[in-house]
Amino acid sequence: MIELNQTHNPELSSWLESANRADSDFPIQNLPYASFRPVASDQPFRIGVAIGDQVLDLQQVAHGGLLTGLPAGVINACNCETLKPLMELGQTCWSALRARLSELLSSNADAVTVDKLKAALCPQDEVEYQLPCQIGDYTDFYTSIHHATRVGSLFRPDNPLLPNYQWIPIGYHGRASSVVISGQDFQRPQGTRAADAPTPTLGPCQRLDYELELGVLVGTGNALGSPVGIDQAESHIFGLCLLNDWSARDLQAWEYQPLGPFLSKSFLTSLSPWVVTMEALAPFRAPWTRSPDEPQPLDYLDSPQVRQHGAVDIRLAVELETARDREASRPGQQLSQSSFVDSYWTLSQMLTHHTVNGCNLQPGDLLGSGTQSGPQPEESGSLLELSQGGKQPLQLANGEQRTFLEDGDRVTLRGWCEAPGSRRIGFGSVTGCVLPARPHH
Amino acid sequence: MIELNQTHNPELSSWLESANRADSDFPIQNLPYASFRPVASDQPFRIGVAIGDQVLDLQQVAHGGLLTGLPAGVINACNCETLKPLMELGQTCWSALRARLSELLSSNADAVTVDKLKAALCPQDEVEYQLPCQIGDYTDFYTSIHHATRVGSLFRPDNPLLPNYQWIPIGYHGRASSVVISGQDFQRPQGTRAADAPTPTLGPCQRLDYELELGVLVGTGNALGSPVGIDQAESHIFGLCLLNDWSARDLQAWEYQPLGPFLSKSFLTSLSPWVVTMEALAPFRAPWTRSPDEPQPLDYLDSPQVRQHGAVDIRLAVELETARDREASRPGQQLSQSSFVDSYWTLSQMLTHHTVNGCNLQPGDLLGSGTQSGPQPEESGSLLELSQGGKQPLQLANGEQRTFLEDGDRVTLRGWCEAPGSRRIGFGSVTGCVLPARPHH
Repeated sequence: MIELNQTHNPELSSWLESANRADSDFPIQNLPYASFRPVASDQPFRIGVAIGDQVLDLQQVAHGGLLTGLPAGVINACNCETLKPLMELGQTCWSALRARLSELLSSNADAVTVDKLKAALCPQDEVEYQLPCQIGDYTDFYTSIHHATRVGSLFRPDNPLLPNYQWIPIGYHGRASSVVISGQDFQRPQGTRAADAPTPTLGPCQRLDYELELGVLVGTGNALGSPVGIDQAESHIFGLCLLNDWSARDLQAWEYQPLGPFLSKSFLTSLSPWVVTMEALAPFRAPWTRSPDEPQPLDYLDSPQVRQHGAVDIRLAVELETARDREASRPGQQLSQSSFVDSYWTLSQMLTHHTVNGCNLQPGDLLGSGTQSGPQPEESGSLLELSQGGKQPLQLANGEQRTFLEDGDRVTLRGWCEAPGSRRIGFGSVTGCVLPARPHH
Repeated sequence: MIELNQTHNPELSSWLESANRADSDFPIQNLPYASFRPVASDQPFRIGVAIGDQVLDLQQVAHGGLLTGLPAGVINACNCETLKPLMELGQTCWSALRARLSELLSSNADAVTVDKLKAALCPQDEVEYQLPCQIGDYTDFYTSIHHATRVGSLFRPDNPLLPNYQWIPIGYHGRASSVVISGQDFQRPQGTRAADAPTPTLGPCQRLDYELELGVLVGTGNALGSPVGIDQAESHIFGLCLLNDWSARDLQAWEYQPLGPFLSKSFLTSLSPWVVTMEALAPFRAPWTRSPDEPQPLDYLDSPQVRQHGAVDIRLAVELETARDREASRPGQQLSQSSFVDSYWTLSQMLTHHTVNGCNLQPGDLLGSGTQSGPQPEESGSLLELSQGGKQPLQLANGEQRTFLEDGDRVTLRGWCEAPGSRRIGFGSVTGCVLPARPHH
């Protein structure tokens, strides 16, 4: 577990004024990474760190000699097109780079340094992003017991929460090729479903949904056959981002037995560009508990560290902007809010369980947290839950109703952390818009 | 669908005598590809084609000027370490290379050519292999209705075959990172299971199994959002190999609901080194049928081509060699035999269904056929079926019994095609041995 250090000091401010605004997602205490380039350019992507409303180009920082003294691997990684070379280096290097960036960007930096850095800034609204790295394998977990119970009661009214749920972090392999960066719009998927018909038919999904999730990017891997112990697990995690696991509920209900979700999920998964490091999240850790009437974790998923601060309080929110909102230049509305602190399983439990059979994780693998729904129905992270399986339409503030997503709907997920005595940090957002289905030939 | 041509002529023979033996897997009509190097060397891997008991080094063939006149992409691909650059080129290039190799290796080749080629040969028993390419995404299907029905009756006695099975090719995302090349032995996985106990426990798998499958290697991909039509599907397939989907049945039974198999499969999947091209399989195509009392395929999964020759008659067999067999220098024994011709779904239906929602396949993606079990119980492709869920031990010829795999057991899968009027071709084999579980810390 990463200790608090000078980079977390809430009094720390930056010479860049936009980073010091109370509502900025990217104060100097955050320092998340992304792969970016000037918008609509044909320049190669490079990696950068978010500060205020700017991106600091780490290639230019390295070329300017401002990383001198850091391990050579760190400097090399700052010259690469994706985050993967940095992700592979491990916690010591990640911490060293963060500490240096914190110094460079702080109000205490000298004028020569500040001048050099100003030349390496690019406004965030003038850049475009790609995935932080090529995703190797993608595994999606199911760590919210509130989501699992509500969804289970819709799919299996007599048996909502299966016996394994409280014993092991349930997860499944997802599709890596269709993981895309925030902003990519997509056509409503076609699929086969049997609702309200004697035989199944192929057609556009009629119950299109989002899922409010966190994405976990694996930094250092483990060898095939070598499980990762619970207290080592977090050191393998480079950082977290926001993940929208778009879901076709009608396809899912028809296809998911006995081998799990397949085409209902594999048409698209959207990631936010900024990866918030585990170190930046250190001030927002929380105890992880099991009530005495619940099953206690098996030994391999338990430790004093997990109990003391295995949880992370990351607030999450979903916004919906409809086509009519856009035409009327109205802002969208928030549909729900929840926190990862309510997750039934921790990040370390997910990762340790994943490797207990010897499965190898690799740098650039992606783990999804599963939909994060809170204990209250209005804290649900999917329309499936909010509309009770489509039976209770949501009344939107703009006068429209929704059970599932309609063409033209834009969904935006946001995340942030706040705690007394700490500077608020944010994840930015992940967004995508539903386009009409393409006709099937 | 690929037409028969001169490369399939059963009268064709090679100047390499070992290729002309009736029992060779690799006559001149086959010409499968692999990535190889001299055994235990530190040389880079390169790609080769199997002929008789030799590997022909395609890098040397290209350097020798013997591929002159072929597209530049083909010649470049022959200088690469994996098959991926060749796989990306598409059917026209694959056919051109096959036609040239058939000419070069035929008895009609001139003496100068033969001398050059002999210098590019390496005995198969002096090489080692790596995966044909880095696997992108791995999807495992479930295309044998006989397997699905037998396994379903063990997991869900009241409901063995689910309603979706006869309408869509059921599949799920598998773990790509733990796909390994034939010959890699592995420690029995640890996992959590609840059999015969009030609460689950972590321990070594007690019901370890193999699965007799074919692996399908995707050559050319499709763009995200662009489904592949049924009559275009096969042109995206580079070729087939053997696949052992090692399975931990006790972990599977405990974890698989509701999201499907996860740790019960992700500890290891073994591939055979040789990839047999779709063109080599052309003589072994067979009609694909549905009896009138079964659901007929939906339009997107149906076509006259599929009906006429959508199936492929690939014979498959499993052999078991126990530790005691090895100590006594006894050969192993065959446990079962089946054919992919009995598959309920075709290769094209698997691929088209996979993309109907817009999911993108990429060069180097792997599809598993699912366990291929024939209609008779003794044609089952897993111990789970052969031992009726562990209730009926198999009596082995060596006096031992098996319900599931024991430490020291070596499982070898083989495949071949034979048909009247055609030269028999083979897939070689995929093998792996079970080592004792590592103690869990």
